[in-house]
Amino acid sequence: MSARAADLSDRARDLFSAEQQRICDELSRLDGSKQFQTDEWLRAGGGGGLTRILADGHLFEKAGVNTSAVWGELDDIALKKLGGSERDFFAAGLSLVLHPRSPMVPTLHANFRYLRRGASAWFGGGSDLTPYYPYREDVVEFHGAWKAVCDRHDVTYYPRFKKWCDEYFYIPHRGEARGVGGIFFDDLAGDLEKGFAFVADCCRNVLAPYIVIAERRRHEPYTEEERRFQFFRRGRYVEFNLIYDRGTSFGLATQGRVESILMSLPPLAGWWYAYEPQPHSREAAAMQYFQPQDWL
Amino acid sequence: MSARAADLSDRARDLFSAEQQRICDELSRLDGSKQFQTDEWLRAGGGGGLTRILADGHLFEKAGVNTSAVWGELDDIALKKLGGSERDFFAAGLSLVLHPRSPMVPTLHANFRYLRRGASAWFGGGSDLTPYYPYREDVVEFHGAWKAVCDRHDVTYYPRFKKWCDEYFYIPHRGEARGVGGIFFDDLAGDLEKGFAFVADCCRNVLAPYIVIAERRRHEPYTEEERRFQFFRRGRYVEFNLIYDRGTSFGLATQGRVESILMSLPPLAGWWYAYEPQPHSREAAAMQYFQPQDWL
Repeated sequence: MSARAADLSDRARDLFSAEQQRICDELSRLDGSKQFQTDEWLRAGGGGGLTRILADGHLFEKAGVNTSAVWGELDDIALKKLGGSERDFFAAGLSLVLHPRSPMVPTLHANFRYLRRGASAWFGGGSDLTPYYPYREDVVEFHGAWKAVCDRHDVTYYPRFKKWCDEYFYIPHRGEARGVGGIFFDDLAGDLEKGFAFVADCCRNVLAPYIVIAERRRHEPYTEEERRFQFFRRGRYVEFNLIYDRGTSFGLATQGRVESILMSLPPLAGWWYAYEPQPHSREAAAMQYFQPQDWL
Repeated sequence: MSARAADLSDRARDLFSAEQQRICDELSRLDGSKQFQTDEWLRAGGGGGLTRILADGHLFEKAGVNTSAVWGELDDIALKKLGGSERDFFAAGLSLVLHPRSPMVPTLHANFRYLRRGASAWFGGGSDLTPYYPYREDVVEFHGAWKAVCDRHDVTYYPRFKKWCDEYFYIPHRGEARGVGGIFFDDLAGDLEKGFAFVADCCRNVLAPYIVIAERRRHEPYTEEERRFQFFRRGRYVEFNLIYDRGTSFGLATQGRVESILMSLPPLAGWWYAYEPQPHSREAAAMQYFQPQDWL
């Protein structure tokens, strides 16, 4: 491992730890009723993580903010999943998934990570929004905020990462996107200082558009039927995460900490046979949002 | 295709169709409030199916009984999943999944199928039980009934198929079985008349132990907390079906009819972070049931 790569490993880990604390403090204030509980875990092969969960709050039915920093030698299962022959690795990451109680407030996901394998290192990450009900100004708020963060660092980022997000968070068997996208990237190599600066800026701004949207929607009334639509849409979230999400399947196959990996799953989700929204209903309008489109 | 294999294709399809009708009639009587709705679908490459669903009944929150008979040439995706180079195939099957409303009544799954690929043909299938609360006499009833069916045909069946079921319905990332097992087999080749007779007997008896158990438990009172435990356990059911079940992943990857494949998913399921039952509670006792064991 070069001294430079080692430096970035430590700095990435420190960044994610500091941001985890700040994000949890902000979310707890936003929720207004509950604190995060904290579980620390160790990985036998090296490293560990800190899982922080807020459950049954006013705003959040379940909110999770995790960090981990793990290192060592990839075992045969991981090698087979990842390809190549280089076993020496370091991985640090920050993940958050916010499942609000109200179906009028969207679900938020974000993940940022620094990875090193042998002499190669890169950043990956992104943030995407999954609304239940369609509010165009919320989606524009979200995409606008990420475009602004991207543009500060590289004007090619937003168009590339927005498209990548639409491609990644897609559920082929449904022919639907998981939500309304955002940004996703998995290969920020080369100038790692530039990558670090971008990822640090992403972390600092990860809650900004969400807080605007949540404050705008949290007091809207909703019905039992609308709550049921939220459960139905959360079912799609479960389908994506368990079948297609690469981080989830890699984590489960390589014996990661199950409760930390699956904190992304919603507290309640439902599957009703051949559910179809009523024509011209808000639910029918919502379903149109789950086709990738240009929001700005 | 030999004339004899063709004969079994038709007879298997007819068996599954007739049994579907009889099973739906019995389940509708057992439920006591609702009838099955019916959706017929056609497969572009050849064949189709009949999906029958009873939703929001007295006993059943969701019950599905599906048949399909499909044939033609395997495409490249299916070939890659299955291996080999033979493309000509026929597959007929009957599947049922019963999700009762009361957490005191177990979930039942059964599937029986006849498959032919080129000149090779075989039967597969099985039935397994997923209780929420631990009633030893129910589990013994279920395993005893399947042992009796197996023993009528071959005394080696029950011990082999019971073990195979424990191995198949296992959730590695949880270190738990999905339920309390039953029987599972996937290779009844050779004497196909013997296979047909066994599978026909399985179909005829698939509801027998379940009806005894459901009638015994359906009027037991339960609390909101017990219902919540049911949602939590149903989360495990979803994890198994979406991550590990071969039929589900094959069906979704090969563009099968999504709503028919995913009728197996429960109407409501939940994920709460790091849930642990209270020591010495009925829930803690239930968790002990999800380790494979000799029930008879």
